[in-house]
Amino acid sequence: MGKPGDNRRDLEAQSAMAENGKVRKQWRFGANPKLLDASSRSIKGTLDRLFSAVDPSDERPLIPLGHGDPSSFPSFRTSPAAEDAIISAVRSGNHNGYRSAVNYQPAKRAVAEYLSRDLPYRLSPDDVLITNGCCYAIEAVVAVLSRPGASILLPRTGYPFYDVRAAFSGLEVRYFDLVQERGWEIDLDSVERLADEGTAAMVIINPGNPTGSVLSYSHLEKVAETARKLGIMIISDEVYGHLVFGSKPFVPMGVFGSIAPVLTLGSISKRWSVPGWRLGWIAVCDRHDILKEAKIVDNIKDFLSIGSDPVSFVQGAVPEIIKNTSKDFFENMVSLLRQTMNMCFDAVNEISCFDCQYKPEGALFMMVKLDWTFLGDINDDVEFCLKLAMEESVIILPGSAVGMPNWVRITFAVEPAALKEGIQRLNAFCKRHAKQEI
Amino acid sequence: MGKPGDNRRDLEAQSAMAENGKVRKQWRFGANPKLLDASSRSIKGTLDRLFSAVDPSDERPLIPLGHGDPSSFPSFRTSPAAEDAIISAVRSGNHNGYRSAVNYQPAKRAVAEYLSRDLPYRLSPDDVLITNGCCYAIEAVVAVLSRPGASILLPRTGYPFYDVRAAFSGLEVRYFDLVQERGWEIDLDSVERLADEGTAAMVIINPGNPTGSVLSYSHLEKVAETARKLGIMIISDEVYGHLVFGSKPFVPMGVFGSIAPVLTLGSISKRWSVPGWRLGWIAVCDRHDILKEAKIVDNIKDFLSIGSDPVSFVQGAVPEIIKNTSKDFFENMVSLLRQTMNMCFDAVNEISCFDCQYKPEGALFMMVKLDWTFLGDINDDVEFCLKLAMEESVIILPGSAVGMPNWVRITFAVEPAALKEGIQRLNAFCKRHAKQEI
Repeated sequence: MGKPGDNRRDLEAQSAMAENGKVRKQWRFGANPKLLDASSRSIKGTLDRLFSAVDPSDERPLIPLGHGDPSSFPSFRTSPAAEDAIISAVRSGNHNGYRSAVNYQPAKRAVAEYLSRDLPYRLSPDDVLITNGCCYAIEAVVAVLSRPGASILLPRTGYPFYDVRAAFSGLEVRYFDLVQERGWEIDLDSVERLADEGTAAMVIINPGNPTGSVLSYSHLEKVAETARKLGIMIISDEVYGHLVFGSKPFVPMGVFGSIAPVLTLGSISKRWSVPGWRLGWIAVCDRHDILKEAKIVDNIKDFLSIGSDPVSFVQGAVPEIIKNTSKDFFENMVSLLRQTMNMCFDAVNEISCFDCQYKPEGALFMMVKLDWTFLGDINDDVEFCLKLAMEESVIILPGSAVGMPNWVRITFAVEPAALKEGIQRLNAFCKRHAKQEI
Repeated sequence: MGKPGDNRRDLEAQSAMAENGKVRKQWRFGANPKLLDASSRSIKGTLDRLFSAVDPSDERPLIPLGHGDPSSFPSFRTSPAAEDAIISAVRSGNHNGYRSAVNYQPAKRAVAEYLSRDLPYRLSPDDVLITNGCCYAIEAVVAVLSRPGASILLPRTGYPFYDVRAAFSGLEVRYFDLVQERGWEIDLDSVERLADEGTAAMVIINPGNPTGSVLSYSHLEKVAETARKLGIMIISDEVYGHLVFGSKPFVPMGVFGSIAPVLTLGSISKRWSVPGWRLGWIAVCDRHDILKEAKIVDNIKDFLSIGSDPVSFVQGAVPEIIKNTSKDFFENMVSLLRQTMNMCFDAVNEISCFDCQYKPEGALFMMVKLDWTFLGDINDDVEFCLKLAMEESVIILPGSAVGMPNWVRITFAVEPAALKEGIQRLNAFCKRHAKQEI
């Protein structure tokens, strides 16, 4: 309790103070193990280790296929209308002060109208809470659900930030399966088996990260029926909403907000290609006010009111960002993603150590299985990605980081020329590490 | 465990579902009481209640003397150089992507150089962590210190966000006294009495919120000696750094970073008058690397790496904001604060129900004691502030919100004309509520 780490460290600290001519017994603080545990699970942490492994003497450009942020590539630059909206908000001088994300109506109204376009009913500004990016929306929801004895159901594979925040908040996590053979649909039987009295919520990510799946209307309806049967809410992570390029349209879970209560999480990060702008939301899609009556909505407001508000002028710019971004911008983005996805999917399946059965229909990633029958001197997905970073300056994410050992997650959302170069290096790498007898 | 509130609410929810033609037993989620408790302590919550009490039919403008954000007043508008720096960062297109506040060197270097100007040594970029405003720096530090059995020493009176975050994190809080008669200096005897084996840190706020105090070099040195004696770190909240207009200069606690380890918290919010921009920092001022060796610095990085980074282009603009803001801007700001403080101090002391002994030397506030011998039909500081909001559309903060019942906190950092008007209304209000016999 209150002890500063191990004895050696104490001695060193004492000795440092003694050198200063003033001896003391010990310092009474130390690291919080809960934080160490939580942060070790993050994608950021994994990627940092891979980036550090890159050989600085390699003169080729680094090809980042590990994370979903194409914003720095010219083809993926955000809409000029979005930049103009920010600049005009800054220039006005009206958005420099504290701005409550719980109370600022113009941003809430703009997001409510934006989301209502795809719903069979209208959200009001009061149904929307603005957050510091979608990650902060996740943080808020997990914190609110973290009552003693509560649990949350997460997809395996999924987005590990949920696990990270649950570990930090002491919320129990249980994993349901996604079925690749059915387009990464949710195994609803496994959901039913996992839930018990303490289970408060299930998370779906649609379009899927890391799977690239897009869930159908009828499947989402079944998800809602299951949630109602179990008495749990649905947290629908739609941060990749509208980034779909396959046969199925994007259907927001909120469409089924009269079957089960839904908290929809989203942001401008992905569709507008501005993840650094930190503007997300939680929308309460709950036609029977079940979440309001259970004080969940007030509780989310409590969390936000003791946390960090999104930047004032970004909140101020949201209405213009949404209103002024052209249809063309969105269509070009989707078309570009379809192009890079196709290029990546075809090329990956021509590399013998890779096996990608599911062709993504949305989001920015594909999950690719490593075929060990073709690989020689590599033992697991983490080693695969580490050696790839070291030898080829190409970053991809080990599947272990998203709960799928023996797989890797590849993002195709990069400049086409960079993707092509990255795939060539992947190919060379796999050939170099192929089993000799083959 | 997991039950959705009271029975009545269950029945209502069931009935709502029954109307939908589909009956279910119960929903398994409910509010998190820890959050309710934490948020009820915040200044935001208190101010929200006061703002709601304002009579909407009062045609006079509302005079906000309750919180420290003058950014919307023309005289307090931020430096054009700061706005230009943001605009140029947005326009470049180089700052739209994810940006780690732990790793982004240019902002860390700029803040390190900025803080080093006032220290007898140089901070390196690695000594600085950028945060989502100073509040997030507080959140990080409190989370790191929240080990089982740990406690933190806070000033009474102080900034209740520390209490709020400690309540949320389960960190025990103990209060030491500030002595008005000695310019709100810290009662170091009370600090020594409070500390025990579990005590990890003490917080100082300098320049003082809500006191307006500026601590002297020699007093700060004694604070450092006390911390060393107790084996605790100092968290020095310098968010009002450089906003001083009395006889004493601003001395950063980091000056004494060789006596005891110091975490300095700050931001551009106050000095640049841009609290909405959410750009703060934690600077490790610790000449013997005690915090590094105790893994406190890594632990803060862990916290930041699983949290929300500040907006990418605000981080990108920091070097220019610091470099390009003119000396004139800062001098005008201090001179304006001196003027409004003097106006407020003199006027308040002419109102019979007020008693302000200490003339502020820094920050944006003064603490004023309510003199009950002059007040008639008002029972406490909260009622005083509520009635004032209702009758005069003037907001000031009840001292209860900062641990000082029977006092009020008045900010003088508003447009001079608004301040004058506010004081007139305060005067009228006090006269109207004066005891009849006087």
